[in-house]
Amino acid sequence: MKSGPVEYAVEAAEHDSSSSSSPRRGLSILDFVIRVAAFVGTLASGIAMGTTDQRLPFFTRFIQFKAEYDDLPALTFFVAANGVVSAYLLILGMPLSVLHIIRTGVTKSRVLLIIFDTVMLALLAAAASAAASIVYLAHKGNPKTNWLAICQQFRFFCRRISGSLIGSFGAMVLLAALIILSAIAVSRRPRG
Amino acid sequence: MKSGPVEYAVEAAEHDSSSSSSPRRGLSILDFVIRVAAFVGTLASGIAMGTTDQRLPFFTRFIQFKAEYDDLPALTFFVAANGVVSAYLLILGMPLSVLHIIRTGVTKSRVLLIIFDTVMLALLAAAASAAASIVYLAHKGNPKTNWLAICQQFRFFCRRISGSLIGSFGAMVLLAALIILSAIAVSRRPRG
Repeated sequence: MKSGPVEYAVEAAEHDSSSSSSPRRGLSILDFVIRVAAFVGTLASGIAMGTTDQRLPFFTRFIQFKAEYDDLPALTFFVAANGVVSAYLLILGMPLSVLHIIRTGVTKSRVLLIIFDTVMLALLAAAASAAASIVYLAHKGNPKTNWLAICQQFRFFCRRISGSLIGSFGAMVLLAALIILSAIAVSRRPRG
Repeated sequence: MKSGPVEYAVEAAEHDSSSSSSPRRGLSILDFVIRVAAFVGTLASGIAMGTTDQRLPFFTRFIQFKAEYDDLPALTFFVAANGVVSAYLLILGMPLSVLHIIRTGVTKSRVLLIIFDTVMLALLAAAASAAASIVYLAHKGNPKTNWLAICQQFRFFCRRISGSLIGSFGAMVLLAALIILSAIAVSRRPRG
């Protein structure tokens, strides 16, 4: 009867890991799918914004007759942040997510992903909102500060920079979902 | 010898909870202290921005001679978001944090806090950056779009809105730290 407790413990551990690895694997697959979607969103946003420029065929009362994304620092920051987040998702996020599908028991690398995801969420939210506030100003202007809307002159430019915000805001929601999913997965971890 | 496995299991569980509750309690106390600091930061930022207005004693070439935070939608959003985050920290965040100090074993409410913290981090990052991009414009202007800097006219207004960003960006870093701490606490939970 000496081996009784050990047998009991081993049995309990086996039962445990088989009952809790299945929902964990499901969460890991969902995690990977969301990561791919967020990668596509940030990459598309970055490229759409980064390739935006418009030349006008005539002179306006302003001196310039050409609008590019890097005329506005907030839009440059937007392109850089989207590049950083999509690179992170491709190089670190998606490989680790695949590892979690194969090995459901690991916990440390899940916590690592939560840390990176949190930083990336803050970066992306900051970039998307800074760009959005400038895009809003370009559309509406602000009479109180005498900043005039520029979208009358640069229709194509404005449509492009407005559209490129969508992917980024979508990716922001997806990154928040990833953090929440990871937290649930970590809280359900089988006792190793 | 029938009770052998049960005794073993109870002993193991006791050993387990006593060895892992101490670091968890330490994390919970740190969590509470960070929450108080984040609450103070967001409340101060919200109040500093929300009470900003400046009347000029003379007319300028612009029509208005008075600057308030609600002349700019991004600054109104900033005040609202800081209010929401500080209310959340006071009403839900700090009470739950106290609960975690008293009862180190609970896990579900920790996951709940991660979910709320993530949403609040995204909200605060968005608000702080949108406001920062407008504050930058007020300081520097943008010659390409013909938006002139307004800080020559409204020195006090500009100094106040710049200063009120600090508490918000500080709270943003603190909220990110909270999510990471909670994830570590959840991953260390004693098997209940």
